[in-house]
This record gives sequence, structure tokens and C-alpha cells, in this order.
Amino acid sequence: MNIISSPKDMQSFADQARAGGRVIAFIPTMGYLHDGHLSLIREGCRHGDEVVVSIFVNPTQFAPGEDLASYPRAFERDCLLAEGAGATTIFSPAERDLYGDGYQTFVALEKLPFHLCGLSRPTFFRGVATVVSKLFNIVKPHVAVFGEKDYQQLLVIRRMVSDLNFDIRIIGGPIIREADGLAMSSRNSYLTPGERQRALCLSKALKQAEAMVRDGVSGAADLIDAARKIITAHPDAVIDYIEIFDPETIEAVQTVDGPARMALAVKIGTTRLIDNTLLLP
Amino acid sequence: MNIISSPKDMQSFADQARAGGRVIAFIPTMGYLHDGHLSLIREGCRHGDEVVVSIFVNPTQFAPGEDLASYPRAFERDCLLAEGAGATTIFSPAERDLYGDGYQTFVALEKLPFHLCGLSRPTFFRGVATVVSKLFNIVKPHVAVFGEKDYQQLLVIRRMVSDLNFDIRIIGGPIIREADGLAMSSRNSYLTPGERQRALCLSKALKQAEAMVRDGVSGAADLIDAARKIITAHPDAVIDYIEIFDPETIEAVQTVDGPARMALAVKIGTTRLIDNTLLLP
Repeated sequence: MNIISSPKDMQSFADQARAGGRVIAFIPTMGYLHDGHLSLIREGCRHGDEVVVSIFVNPTQFAPGEDLASYPRAFERDCLLAEGAGATTIFSPAERDLYGDGYQTFVALEKLPFHLCGLSRPTFFRGVATVVSKLFNIVKPHVAVFGEKDYQQLLVIRRMVSDLNFDIRIIGGPIIREADGLAMSSRNSYLTPGERQRALCLSKALKQAEAMVRDGVSGAADLIDAARKIITAHPDAVIDYIEIFDPETIEAVQTVDGPARMALAVKIGTTRLIDNTLLLP
Repeated sequence: MNIISSPKDMQSFADQARAGGRVIAFIPTMGYLHDGHLSLIREGCRHGDEVVVSIFVNPTQFAPGEDLASYPRAFERDCLLAEGAGATTIFSPAERDLYGDGYQTFVALEKLPFHLCGLSRPTFFRGVATVVSKLFNIVKPHVAVFGEKDYQQLLVIRRMVSDLNFDIRIIGGPIIREADGLAMSSRNSYLTPGERQRALCLSKALKQAEAMVRDGVSGAADLIDAARKIITAHPDAVIDYIEIFDPETIEAVQTVDGPARMALAVKIGTTRLIDNTLLLP
């Protein structure tokens, strides 16, 4: 497996792969890989001859006071895990190589970020769209895989790719969960054993909504209220949002009379967790 | 010569050219070509096997009240002129193909636009950076050529290319002037015969500053005052700005003790003209 840190070297590698007719699949990550990432890498293997995984904790998507400094890192373990899942190349740039002196260019969307996570993290999606644009120009993939766990991010990337004419096919990979239902996340490592137990309220609230919709409940307010009750049963759980929305526009829906997405963000102690699911009436 | 209007077709054409080992040079224009554009196309021919000229009057770089609707157009003449200068392909997308329903993604710089033309046209460089990013992703060039006439634009593009890791070499082409000194511009076509004559005050003011610097004058305020006198001699000339600045950062300089750039924007009647020159002490 190749490990490349220089953007120029990565571009040369991509040029050679493309000149040789090889298809490049790309999975951008912030490292500290778990089975969710590995499922995206395996999905990438189904589409590309070269499967490039980037590992970069992107500073521009963290706001002051967020967990940039403490974000978990395990580079050597990540390389082994990625290789085991089929990655052929790791791209792991230094921060100064992506954001050098005088850096000043940002990619921003005008509508999709003004919902859900974008409301409590107002510069988050600008940071994501910017670093993903940069990584696309460096890795030059034909296909890129993003997880549905970060559902709003997936929509932002799809919209950005369409709007800016990136010639890249975007594939969404399903949420991977622990045996007890908790959506996998690098940030789960922050949880104490007690918090880890209480964090199940996110997936339980979503499961309950799925069941209610199957049973014929269609009022978004009723579904959200029921989810809220599950979560507020834990005194150290603080809800950021619980929303039910159109899966393409993220506009809130009042009635689940077609496929809708339900998403929530909850702080368990000091750790902010997100999860989402498809509601199918 | 090929004429391509679909972004997807242009991308396929670029992929084929690249797969065949051909180098793509790109000259983005808003059409109504003059000798300035043709000199950029000829420069492109020195660098590329495929020389792609885009013709697209980009709505996102015009503010309400500016001359989007009246911007001069002459598509068939442009094709003949571009071909004569060596272009192999014209890319001329429809507006709806670049800015479709729900379009919402913009590329913006945080420092360079807050000078010169960016002050009186606050969304101009956002529109330029956005459309050029799109065109780069569609035309997939190895090399792109921009004129020094739009000097601030050239700096914005260079910075954006570096910041967003576009793997594209940017080449600046010199200002081409009419025999009497007027910098060529598609907007010169707006000038009445009398205005055309008075428009010479821009190049005359710059020529005088060049001469003063050669004669040992180094105070930026003195050079700007002298230029202002030439321009305000015409009652229908309204100065937007006259600035002397660092050629890389566009920060104003007080003293011309090394290479500096002098730029000005002046309204002659209803037509806003720009020009600039290098001051070499």
C-alpha cells in the first residue's frame, strides 16, 4: 500500500493511474477508522482499481471551542485497517500543505447548510465543502464514497459536485451500527461507560419513529415528540435538534406521506452525537 | 474546429484528449473577442495541443444594474476569430446548463477581493471564482491563460488555483492596446466617438506615472495626484479608484521602491473602464 503525504505527489500518482486507464475510488476520512469507514472503503473497492483513503483532520470544519485538538488519532492502526479493507493508497497531508500562508479561498453553499447541524455549527459545511473540493482536485477520483451517517454532509457534497461540475460520481454508504444499535462514530471514543449506555437513546428514538410510521402514524410533530421523550428521559442528554425532512432538500415536512429522513443531534455529557434514518410509510 | 455546448460533452472531449496524451490549454472569455483575447489564444497555442476557448457571459459576476443584458455578443464572428488565432474548440454553454434549478454553491476569497474593483463590485470576484472553478472542472485544462488587463482577476485566479489545489498552470498575458494606447476591452464598444477619445485619459495617466517613476518620483500619493489631474480634466470622467500596490498582495504601497502595479477604474459617461501598468523604478 502507498502512503502519500504531498499533494503534488498525490496528483502525479492520480495522473499515472488515469493515464493507465485505472479507475480511482476515493474515501475521504478524518481517520480513527471504524467499521463504518471500512464499509465505505469496501464499497470503493467495488468501483475503483485504485482505492484512495485520505486521513486528514480538517481544521476549517471545526469552530473555536470544538474538539479539533482532542479529535482522536491513530495513524498506523488506520493504515492497517484501511489496507485490510482494500485501500491501495493512503493520502495523509500535513495541515500546512493544505492550508499554507495567506490561505483565503472557501467553497460555501447558500441553502443546504441552513438546517440541522449547520445551525449549531455555522462554519462546518463551508469547511467540509472546501476541504472536499481540495481533496477532489488532489486525488482526482472518478468515484467518491461518503457515509449516510453524516446525511446532511452527503447532500452538501452531492449538491456541490453538481453545482461546480466536478466530474465525480458520489456514492452514499449506509450507516453501520454497533450490535446494540449505536451508530459508529470516531467520537464514540469520548464516551464514558455510562454515557456509552445512555447514547443508545439516539438509535432507540429513531427505531421507535420507524415503528410508529410503519404502524400508521404520519404526523411529524407526534413522531418528534415521542423521540424527544425517549431522549429527555436521560438527564445528561441535551437535544440539539430532532427533525423530519425531505430527503433531498432538507426542508421540514409536517406529514410523513412518502419517504422522509429523520435526523437528530444530541449531546451526551460533552460529546455531540448524530444519527438518522429513513422513514418509509 | 469543434463547437461544444454541453458540459458533459466537453468533459468527455477533455477525457479523450487527456487519454491520448494531448495537453489542453484553456482561455475563458465572455466573447466579443478582440486582439487582447486573440493574443491569449495564441499564447495558449504555445502550451497546448488542444486550445479550448470558452464563450460565456457569466451572470453571477454581474450585480443588479450592471450591464449583463447589454453585454455585447457576436458568437459567429467570435468563432471565426478564435479559429484564426489557433483555437481548436469553442465551449459555449447555455446559462441554464451552468446555473440550473437550486444552484447554490459559490467559491469566494477572503482578502484579495477587498481592494480595487472588488470594492465597487462586491460580488464580482465571487462570480468569477465560481464560474472559473466550474469551467476548470468542465474543460479539465493543463494550462489556462488570463489577461493582465484584469490584473486583480488574474491574482484572484492564481490564489484560488493554489488554495483549492487545481492542478492547472496559470499564465498571464500582457495588455494589448489600440494604436493610440487605449487598452482593448469588449466594453470599448459602448463608447461614443467623443467618449472613445476621452477614454485615452486612462492610458495617458498610466504612461505619465511610468515616466515619472523613471524620472525618480517614488511617492505613491504624488503619482496618483498627477494621474488624477489628467483624468479629471475631462468633465464626464468619474474616477472609481487610482491605486498603486504590491503586485502580489494588492496592498497599497506608499513608495515605489521596487516593482509596483498601478491600476485605475474610470467611468467615461456610463461605461466603466479599467487599465493598469507595471511601475519599475
